[in-house]
Amino acid sequence: MKGAILAIGNELVRGRILNTTSFWAARWLLLEGYEIQEILTVPDELGLIESRLRDFLSQYAFCLVSGGLGPTTDDITNEAVAKALGRPLITNEEMVRRIKERERVQNLPHNPLRLRMARLPEGAILLTNTQAMAGYYIILDKKLLFCLPGVPHEFEHLLKARVIPLLKEKLPVKGAVRSRLYKIFGLREADINLKLKALEDSSGVTLGYYPVLPEIHLSVLIKASSEAETEKLFEKVHHKITEAFHPYIFGHDEDLLEAVIGKLLTSRKETLAVAESCTGGLIASRITRIPGSSNYFERGVVTYSNQAKMEILGVPEEILASYGAVSEPVALAMAEGVRKLAKTNYGLSVTGIAGPTGGSPEKPVGTVWIGFSCEKATVAQCFLFPGDRHLVQDYAAGTALDWLRQYLAYGTLIPRYQFACRS
Amino acid sequence: MKGAILAIGNELVRGRILNTTSFWAARWLLLEGYEIQEILTVPDELGLIESRLRDFLSQYAFCLVSGGLGPTTDDITNEAVAKALGRPLITNEEMVRRIKERERVQNLPHNPLRLRMARLPEGAILLTNTQAMAGYYIILDKKLLFCLPGVPHEFEHLLKARVIPLLKEKLPVKGAVRSRLYKIFGLREADINLKLKALEDSSGVTLGYYPVLPEIHLSVLIKASSEAETEKLFEKVHHKITEAFHPYIFGHDEDLLEAVIGKLLTSRKETLAVAESCTGGLIASRITRIPGSSNYFERGVVTYSNQAKMEILGVPEEILASYGAVSEPVALAMAEGVRKLAKTNYGLSVTGIAGPTGGSPEKPVGTVWIGFSCEKATVAQCFLFPGDRHLVQDYAAGTALDWLRQYLAYGTLIPRYQFACRS
Repeated sequence: MKGAILAIGNELVRGRILNTTSFWAARWLLLEGYEIQEILTVPDELGLIESRLRDFLSQYAFCLVSGGLGPTTDDITNEAVAKALGRPLITNEEMVRRIKERERVQNLPHNPLRLRMARLPEGAILLTNTQAMAGYYIILDKKLLFCLPGVPHEFEHLLKARVIPLLKEKLPVKGAVRSRLYKIFGLREADINLKLKALEDSSGVTLGYYPVLPEIHLSVLIKASSEAETEKLFEKVHHKITEAFHPYIFGHDEDLLEAVIGKLLTSRKETLAVAESCTGGLIASRITRIPGSSNYFERGVVTYSNQAKMEILGVPEEILASYGAVSEPVALAMAEGVRKLAKTNYGLSVTGIAGPTGGSPEKPVGTVWIGFSCEKATVAQCFLFPGDRHLVQDYAAGTALDWLRQYLAYGTLIPRYQFACRS
Repeated sequence: MKGAILAIGNELVRGRILNTTSFWAARWLLLEGYEIQEILTVPDELGLIESRLRDFLSQYAFCLVSGGLGPTTDDITNEAVAKALGRPLITNEEMVRRIKERERVQNLPHNPLRLRMARLPEGAILLTNTQAMAGYYIILDKKLLFCLPGVPHEFEHLLKARVIPLLKEKLPVKGAVRSRLYKIFGLREADINLKLKALEDSSGVTLGYYPVLPEIHLSVLIKASSEAETEKLFEKVHHKITEAFHPYIFGHDEDLLEAVIGKLLTSRKETLAVAESCTGGLIASRITRIPGSSNYFERGVVTYSNQAKMEILGVPEEILASYGAVSEPVALAMAEGVRKLAKTNYGLSVTGIAGPTGGSPEKPVGTVWIGFSCEKATVAQCFLFPGDRHLVQDYAAGTALDWLRQYLAYGTLIPRYQFACRS
């Protein structure tokens, strides 16, 4: 089942905003057996949008349009869609009601421009039930046209919650499709590639390999003539992948490493505190992005200065003076210190040199000590992470989080990771 | 001068690789006055590439094709270009020589497949002088077609070193061009739109409005017949924009809010500490993404539990008990507490309900108290931010950072922001 994406917005063709929504849409749709054949980005130009949309609708079973649904005068998607379909624009009373309701709730002054968002092509069916979020679809004979907001989180929400279910219902893929995205942390790309070679030749199996550093994502798409056959093939591939990459697979599909940890901690009724230096709050921030994290996350400290390491964590001044802030004893003292002060089950610590400055011949940029503390023991490992400041921070935060995961899931006290320094 | 980009590759339409090269090309070309009108991504399919390319060449003055120039059988760009132009494929002897030379230098076994890279459409002129890098251009009457490798660093190198100079030579833009992106924080979208109306009617000025929530970005593109006139027009527009949006413009082009604060603190030799609850380390994390932040950022604490607020920040238990954690006295105590403990010039605090749970009729999800403390005073404001957990966190972090910026830049102790609750 083939489709196309038409992304609308001056900002996209002028290099102001990277078109990530189309990228994610193509990925998620493919996992359900829907292949995107063309992704076209155009500016807010009525005639161009109209002609390209007409062309796509004549060639493909479905089309996703993103952007240009807002209230300002350069939002012209509704008008372009109406023209391309030869249908009039009609005021959608339900949308009017929601816009007014939002103005009331948020105590906004009434702005008549906002009602532009309710002028939709005839036949438009709103995609949400409750929110005044833009987005609708139109059934065209045997084809489907979706118009989604360009704002990434709204687009992604509607894609997963509404577009994919609607496609499955109204344009089902022939045969059976099964897919899974495996999320891997801590293995070398070269090692993964080598192990994948053995899996690549099964017919009906399409593998995709995506470095989303510091993670590696591995997509598996299975197509066969029946549910049963697909399932059989999937089980076989799943077994091989699990065998090859265990225990580095931290989750699949929508799983986030920090959410996986949250579930494990919640089910064990255990708690966590973190002490960060070079990751600067990134670990705490990732953990607290997850709803409900207040149940297991007690505190985080970003002890950027030595003074803060001594005052908040009780790291002894002698240790800082003799070994330096980026050292095994400091990582150990930070992890144990934060765990004991916060009275939590686990403590994580990171101290390192994220760069671009601060490196030395003995401790080059990328050198990071990570500490892990539980009731049983407090341990630390040294890493040398590649890349710029942000990548070093991302690798360090990911490694600390995954370390906790491997301990919670398998009781591994010192997991083996890529970029670990062997001393 | 208008053009289009055709990006070729299965990996791009399957969501394996994000099409960043087209994005950068559009941005750099625009800064030279060359507007990209369409960016199309297609898979390795001969007929589709041929028809889309023919269409682009009929409509635009220039076209950039990327990808599909390699030696493997799925690299079909040369064949598609030849078909679209109605020209034969001819062996380019210079390219053959370079391929053989590279095999010799890198000690590679001779692979006849590599010679596919030398079969180019008639009239192709190689873009490099020395390297065996793919890439050529073809002059078509008054139009230009560029075929570039898809590998990002090769693409970007050729774009800057060869494509832009060739465009300037063979398809010069009439007059002069100047552009700037203004970054705005804290104003309502509707208010910005209203003020923009007054600016929109100047001829030669193109405005673009991009909500990159919680920020708003405003792009200005000036075109006029001469450098002097462009400059004059730019100064006029710049003055109007500054007047309209001051003091909410925090930077322009590549500026980040956290980097702007970093520069201000560095130049004043002042320091900062932050105490976060519902933003969970996001503020500290943004600050420490910036190289050199250790010069002004002393510490951050993520006091997720009440216990942590008391222990690390000295927030009195009575206050927490009487007013609750999300309250003015707690925000004040956190901001002042972290500033005094860290002995910094400034303290920022955030305590709120990011959701999705934890809200109540008096304190719904989105309620956030932000505190600001300096030697002169400690103040706090209440906000009701819209959106989901992540957006509430992003608004809260942005508002706290911008508050500090407005104080550092203008001495404003209590700036006025959108979503502030008027009590």
